[in-house]
Amino acid sequence: MTKILRKLSLLRYQAQMRENYTLTRLYVEADLSQGQVIDLSKDQAHYLGGVLRMTTGGSLRIFNGRDGEWEAQLTDISRKSGQMKVTRLLREPYACPDIWLCFAPVRKHRNAFILEKATELGVARFQPVTTQHTQYGKLRLDKMQSQIIEAAEQTERLDLPELKDPVTLEQLLGDWPEGRTLIFADEVGDAKPALETLKEISSSCALLIGPEGGFTPQERDLLREQNFVIPVTLGPRILRADTAALSLLTLWQSVQGDWG
Amino acid sequence: MTKILRKLSLLRYQAQMRENYTLTRLYVEADLSQGQVIDLSKDQAHYLGGVLRMTTGGSLRIFNGRDGEWEAQLTDISRKSGQMKVTRLLREPYACPDIWLCFAPVRKHRNAFILEKATELGVARFQPVTTQHTQYGKLRLDKMQSQIIEAAEQTERLDLPELKDPVTLEQLLGDWPEGRTLIFADEVGDAKPALETLKEISSSCALLIGPEGGFTPQERDLLREQNFVIPVTLGPRILRADTAALSLLTLWQSVQGDWG
Repeated sequence: MTKILRKLSLLRYQAQMRENYTLTRLYVEADLSQGQVIDLSKDQAHYLGGVLRMTTGGSLRIFNGRDGEWEAQLTDISRKSGQMKVTRLLREPYACPDIWLCFAPVRKHRNAFILEKATELGVARFQPVTTQHTQYGKLRLDKMQSQIIEAAEQTERLDLPELKDPVTLEQLLGDWPEGRTLIFADEVGDAKPALETLKEISSSCALLIGPEGGFTPQERDLLREQNFVIPVTLGPRILRADTAALSLLTLWQSVQGDWG
Repeated sequence: MTKILRKLSLLRYQAQMRENYTLTRLYVEADLSQGQVIDLSKDQAHYLGGVLRMTTGGSLRIFNGRDGEWEAQLTDISRKSGQMKVTRLLREPYACPDIWLCFAPVRKHRNAFILEKATELGVARFQPVTTQHTQYGKLRLDKMQSQIIEAAEQTERLDLPELKDPVTLEQLLGDWPEGRTLIFADEVGDAKPALETLKEISSSCALLIGPEGGFTPQERDLLREQNFVIPVTLGPRILRADTAALSLLTLWQSVQGDWG
């Protein structure tokens, strides 16, 4: 019986794949509603017309992070410009659970990696945090935003994670909102395992990941003095900052988020 | 009271950091025991003498994946050759829990990423698997091995994950060992959440991750026909193969591995 159900659900899944997932998925800024006509940006036209070689009449999926996912049809397309018409609603709006990732930016490709993976793992807000060991030039927020959008397009998200301006650790803790717990990955032996701690949390939550080289002793003390901060451990091995971010997000989604 | 304990444990931690973690950590192939003298390979000599500019008398930490972690002292070092003497045992041998990662190799940098992250997350064995959608040239197992070693060095592991030769999915399933459960990440709706499933498993375990583009319907059927295979879901978003690998490993370590 289970086998038959599985088979049916597999067929349903494949049908859905054929119908939807095969269609190119694009983020747009415009509001979305039935029948609306949207001008393509130069980049979008280049991508659809130039790279994908799509032609007038071709269908794609679009989302703006607010209005769900819609099917659209190209009414005009060249390599430099084009238009599409919104034809039908494919999926109702859905916002990822309310989980923040506060992270000290790390080296270029690891940073891109954190943005991509955390977007896949359904993070709601990115909060860059500068710490004493943080080493990077000026943050390219525009570049980070486009990396987030690209990840959201491929992971079938209907919303976009919010990207905040960087703050210092002191600012982050000083302006901390009422009723949100801050979980930080700490190698110190007395912290409880992450899963155990995350299970017990009844408030909204944020995760904090240190830079390569970790927090300084002063920063650790400052963090542990806050009544809204809980340190957790992620096992006996030393994890890179980007690994710790993904592991914490995975565990949070499994016990507090939408993986249940 | 807790605060005092935390403070003490923090100081202990910092002391340990000063004593050990600041020392360069190197993987060697030789057996390790008190007083033993080891010739440096050309690469090791170049790294220690040329890159790090270490001199005779300098200390480092070495491990071979079998004999724990030892302190060693350079007795002779140039940019091309050198010797070190094993001075004392720092950590007893410790093997990571018995978890396998069977994965379809993906594009170059994502592959390197899976090897690095899974090594940090304490995987015991890597089993490359070729599937119908697997696209890559010949696998550079030597390169993969050195990526694994580099990750093991930095994540403070005392053992090395085993890297097996690639097999086809059919071979993998055909030669499957008695009493080991194979968990695979499946988007099909009827699969149970990964955490829930992993909690209940009483046997040893392996994780299977498909290629970009996923498994074919035939492969899904083949997998679901095996009585040792259990499909699980990782939430409502579509995860890349590398993300799914890390999430499954994180969840397994939290409920079955050494993160508890």
